[in-house]
Amino acid sequence: MEKVTINEVGLRDGIQAQPKFVATEQKIAILADAIGAGLRHFEITSFVNPKAVPQMADAAELCRRLPPLVDGEYTALVPNLRGYERAVESGVRSVAVVLCTTETMNQRNTNMSLAEAIASGEVVVRRGRADQARVRAYIATAAGCPFEGKVDPAVVQALADRMLAAGADEIAIADTIGAANPAQMDDLLGRLIRAFGADRLAVHFHDTRGMGLALAWTAAQLGIRRFDSSIGGLGGCPFAPGASGNLATEDLVFMLGEAGYDTGVDMNALATAVNALERIFDRPVGGRIMRWYNSRRRLS
Amino acid sequence: MEKVTINEVGLRDGIQAQPKFVATEQKIAILADAIGAGLRHFEITSFVNPKAVPQMADAAELCRRLPPLVDGEYTALVPNLRGYERAVESGVRSVAVVLCTTETMNQRNTNMSLAEAIASGEVVVRRGRADQARVRAYIATAAGCPFEGKVDPAVVQALADRMLAAGADEIAIADTIGAANPAQMDDLLGRLIRAFGADRLAVHFHDTRGMGLALAWTAAQLGIRRFDSSIGGLGGCPFAPGASGNLATEDLVFMLGEAGYDTGVDMNALATAVNALERIFDRPVGGRIMRWYNSRRRLS
Repeated sequence: MEKVTINEVGLRDGIQAQPKFVATEQKIAILADAIGAGLRHFEITSFVNPKAVPQMADAAELCRRLPPLVDGEYTALVPNLRGYERAVESGVRSVAVVLCTTETMNQRNTNMSLAEAIASGEVVVRRGRADQARVRAYIATAAGCPFEGKVDPAVVQALADRMLAAGADEIAIADTIGAANPAQMDDLLGRLIRAFGADRLAVHFHDTRGMGLALAWTAAQLGIRRFDSSIGGLGGCPFAPGASGNLATEDLVFMLGEAGYDTGVDMNALATAVNALERIFDRPVGGRIMRWYNSRRRLS
Repeated sequence: MEKVTINEVGLRDGIQAQPKFVATEQKIAILADAIGAGLRHFEITSFVNPKAVPQMADAAELCRRLPPLVDGEYTALVPNLRGYERAVESGVRSVAVVLCTTETMNQRNTNMSLAEAIASGEVVVRRGRADQARVRAYIATAAGCPFEGKVDPAVVQALADRMLAAGADEIAIADTIGAANPAQMDDLLGRLIRAFGADRLAVHFHDTRGMGLALAWTAAQLGIRRFDSSIGGLGGCPFAPGASGNLATEDLVFMLGEAGYDTGVDMNALATAVNALERIFDRPVGGRIMRWYNSRRRLS
């Protein structure tokens, strides 16, 4: 079976916009369950301004308390060089920078123009490379921007090219607001794979309009083997109106497993971890597979 | 834009297993809304034993009361020759026969062995052809059977071949219990398209395990242009444990429209029709797109 890498982003992208504060201990408990289910790649937090994103205020403490992870990786999002330095001080060895595709979205996300965001991204990528850190660069709002609408694939390619030229190890194509359709993603990813190769690309989808799995399958068919997802489908970007619901890890793991890929994740253990989330968030949590999965487990 | 045909099966497959009785007037109201939204192909009822499926007890009356439909088609499901004759007496000119892939499922569905079901299907198909009716043949449980598990694609092909040889106009590949994954469907449909051509095939998916849109997109990529779906995602087979939730028409129409296909359906009018279903069923109804769609409409 061909291996795929599932990068669990729930602790960052999933939690950052939750209304109810999630304590460090609760994050560690979610992480422990996810590790127990077989997940090995985590975007664990972001070193952003705690006033802007209170849920990430414990970034440094969380990074210091992470359990050991064999054959895996903890990545922290860093918005700029200051964030990068805080991450490295906290022991982080893998970072992610974020570049949005439009002027307005960069302004809203990090208070930078597009040109400033590119320059800032390059500085962090180069610094990470010099420090022998692993560096992922997100091209966010790659399919559509909540403020400026459809995004030209040539813009996505040009931004990815800049980040790779600066030394990024991986480009994550992020449909931040769930605006993509599979025809568009087929076209965009096909173009990027021809330019950079599938090995340097990851995909990050939101299920806002119900197409998360169709998009993931489109990427898989094109040869992409690195997927972001969020346990329980937690998620949404606090600065992007309409964004809600990352693609759920359990939906992605289930589909890819059924389709014959080796995700390394045990579905029963993952479903147990998802059900445990409801105790933290005090509301129904879970991807599309959970109703069917839980009803089957009750029967057996 | 390339045209696709959406065959609305909510009034048959969607309603047949609903716990609350849906009166003929209510069916006509749902139909009127769906026609208003631009839908033109309907599987309207089934001429089955009313004791087995009470929701379809009004099949003859409903067929006599159908509004005129320009450039469209009303199809009725017929389980056997007796059902076919009742359908024709009620003015039906397009029928669908159902053949399940396994011994057990045919027994549960129509109390026939697989051999009897094939013979019965051939009789109805030939009779329909002689009468110049349009005949669709479902190959049901094409991806998996709730009693016998995975289904050999060669079995599906052999059954489709029998029905086409008898004179069926169209084969509908039905994942009756939502057991398919996109890799499997890619393989199965590829095989059937090579054997019979995409023009004679339609697909019928359930969203039980959240993969409905991924499956539909897989079919679209292979050249299939005829899709079944159920308004509001209503559905489930009363004789197939675990079956629930047909692929929602609004999800399919939205995805295919976004991907550049001409569905002929107006999303605003369709969303209004879906919201109206809640008054009939007294519970939340709707596909994956509805939350996003309704929140946008409230904003605008």
